[in-house]
Amino acid sequence: MSEVKRGYVRPLDLKHGRVDMTHGSGGRAMVQLISELFTRHLGNAYLGQGNDGAVLPAAVLNGKPARLVMSTDCHVVSPLFFPGGDIGCLSVHGTLNDVAVMGATPLYLAAGFILEEGFALAELACIVESMARAAHAAGVPVVTGDTKVVERGKGDGIFITTTGVGVLPDGLELGGARVRPGDVVLVSGSMGDHGVAIMSQRENLSFEASIESDTAALHGLIAQLLATGADIRCLRDPTRGGLASTLNEIAGQSGVGMMLHEKAIPIKPVVAAACEFLGLDPLYVANEGKLIVICAAADAPRLLATLRAHPLGVDAAVIGEVMADEHHFVQLTTAFGGRRIVDWLAGDQLPRIC
Amino acid sequence: MSEVKRGYVRPLDLKHGRVDMTHGSGGRAMVQLISELFTRHLGNAYLGQGNDGAVLPAAVLNGKPARLVMSTDCHVVSPLFFPGGDIGCLSVHGTLNDVAVMGATPLYLAAGFILEEGFALAELACIVESMARAAHAAGVPVVTGDTKVVERGKGDGIFITTTGVGVLPDGLELGGARVRPGDVVLVSGSMGDHGVAIMSQRENLSFEASIESDTAALHGLIAQLLATGADIRCLRDPTRGGLASTLNEIAGQSGVGMMLHEKAIPIKPVVAAACEFLGLDPLYVANEGKLIVICAAADAPRLLATLRAHPLGVDAAVIGEVMADEHHFVQLTTAFGGRRIVDWLAGDQLPRIC
Repeated sequence: MSEVKRGYVRPLDLKHGRVDMTHGSGGRAMVQLISELFTRHLGNAYLGQGNDGAVLPAAVLNGKPARLVMSTDCHVVSPLFFPGGDIGCLSVHGTLNDVAVMGATPLYLAAGFILEEGFALAELACIVESMARAAHAAGVPVVTGDTKVVERGKGDGIFITTTGVGVLPDGLELGGARVRPGDVVLVSGSMGDHGVAIMSQRENLSFEASIESDTAALHGLIAQLLATGADIRCLRDPTRGGLASTLNEIAGQSGVGMMLHEKAIPIKPVVAAACEFLGLDPLYVANEGKLIVICAAADAPRLLATLRAHPLGVDAAVIGEVMADEHHFVQLTTAFGGRRIVDWLAGDQLPRIC
Repeated sequence: MSEVKRGYVRPLDLKHGRVDMTHGSGGRAMVQLISELFTRHLGNAYLGQGNDGAVLPAAVLNGKPARLVMSTDCHVVSPLFFPGGDIGCLSVHGTLNDVAVMGATPLYLAAGFILEEGFALAELACIVESMARAAHAAGVPVVTGDTKVVERGKGDGIFITTTGVGVLPDGLELGGARVRPGDVVLVSGSMGDHGVAIMSQRENLSFEASIESDTAALHGLIAQLLATGADIRCLRDPTRGGLASTLNEIAGQSGVGMMLHEKAIPIKPVVAAACEFLGLDPLYVANEGKLIVICAAADAPRLLATLRAHPLGVDAAVIGEVMADEHHFVQLTTAFGGRRIVDWLAGDQLPRIC
């Protein structure tokens, strides 16, 4: 079954080879996969320790022990490669962003891979390289990992679960329960790009202008927002379920209502057209590199300016206000002067979007 | 598609219900699954924060910032339920043990669930309850999580990826590269129980005596070993690939050889018989609640006594010694006075064992 002999190991065939069950067995084939693929691309001093876990420095900020933030995200996106990204960089960005929206500086990532027997090693290599580039660009190393293989037909190519750990400065408290009537709701850019990019790829649609996923790491942008000292109540990245589901969740946690203004919500014309065609509401479509900022009204102008000064926030906008509402409704004033309730996503608009 | 209406939500049918795609959508069905199942069983103050990540206290030991240990493990065991355990408790024990063998005290767990459409909610509930019991017994909370759903035929019921974070005392350095010639190799109990329990269940075999998985959390036992102050070089839990693969890995990392004594390695007669029947070598079979301890020879007696005094170590034994060997061979003196090389597992003896 294995081509591995004591003293001589044939290198992985990264061009034509495929994942087989031995790559998950705990034996030499697994060690080879890890060293020739995972460690080769993701390698760093922590991952190189080669033990069951990574030993990491104490988590301090300004010389003092800092609170930790921990977040985990399973990535099952289909297709694995899409305009603007792939499951590899997505699995880095998604988890980094979940740590960063808590106000924390992400420090470390762990990555767990569930591979399907028969998955092309060439695709796996592309994905791991993409993870490595994203982790390197973000300055956050993958310090530990695990690889399992399941039989053909018991998985779907590759699933990646990433877990992030970061440090949170003293005194900083962000969260869905801190929003108050009178606060202002901003977004960092156009809504729906990621989900529409995936759906277009999946449905094999082409539009006049290409639609790319917005997948990106937001912690740099978030650091600049926090550095302003503005009174930020809550940050969120509106992924699955989109803007609508995320705002409903926050409204429920804080016991408030919200009024959004349809005309103010940035949506690219090509995304709006694609949504029309696909029967999607862009407010429910996933984003992977966008930020919701809810802040005290007085601080909205300078946060908007800070967002717009950053490459990931050039299309930022104020999109609505928080108000008292015992029903915790999120409402929308439409372009025609009407008003409608923007409810939770009830069914499943977009499966396996991230 | 969804039975959820504004203002009234029918409770999850935990008896006859099944996972559907809406449970992974980011909408209300997912929120319901999380609150009625995950939070209900795993609930704690951290998980209850309800944000994208959990905010955790600073990691300190004796008032000082402590180094962190981070480890992640994907669990794809099949079948999901087996004698002595299930994927739920296994996913807690497996990751806690990986943190603990580094010498760290496990503090927090994150859990990511990849569910297959159609998976019975009743089984999911059993698994989550088992996780909750294991986490509670270990004193380590699940502080954050994620749930994704894939279409029928694109998964296999449930995969669980857990990530653990712990704190490591100053000055404690354990690792596969610290082993020296003259050191002694101990194991905490009988080898092969977990793997044989799984294989017997999978092959629908019954033996006269029942074979149960040894799945257990080892951090309590490890704390007692560390408290002796003995010179422990390395701790490992011999999971996938079993004792043989783990010792080969350590031998390679430290650049040493090992000589094991077949008669000294504890193997239950029923497990040995089952291995004979199944064509397995128990030295390559996974364990999920056993510990390898490699220590300075002078400290072996008191570590053996400490192991035997603990419920998880009553069958502990000294099984061999470390020696200089430029080939880094792990060898075995057989019961008949012969000698053979215990090589890496090359093929795939036991797929999806954990």
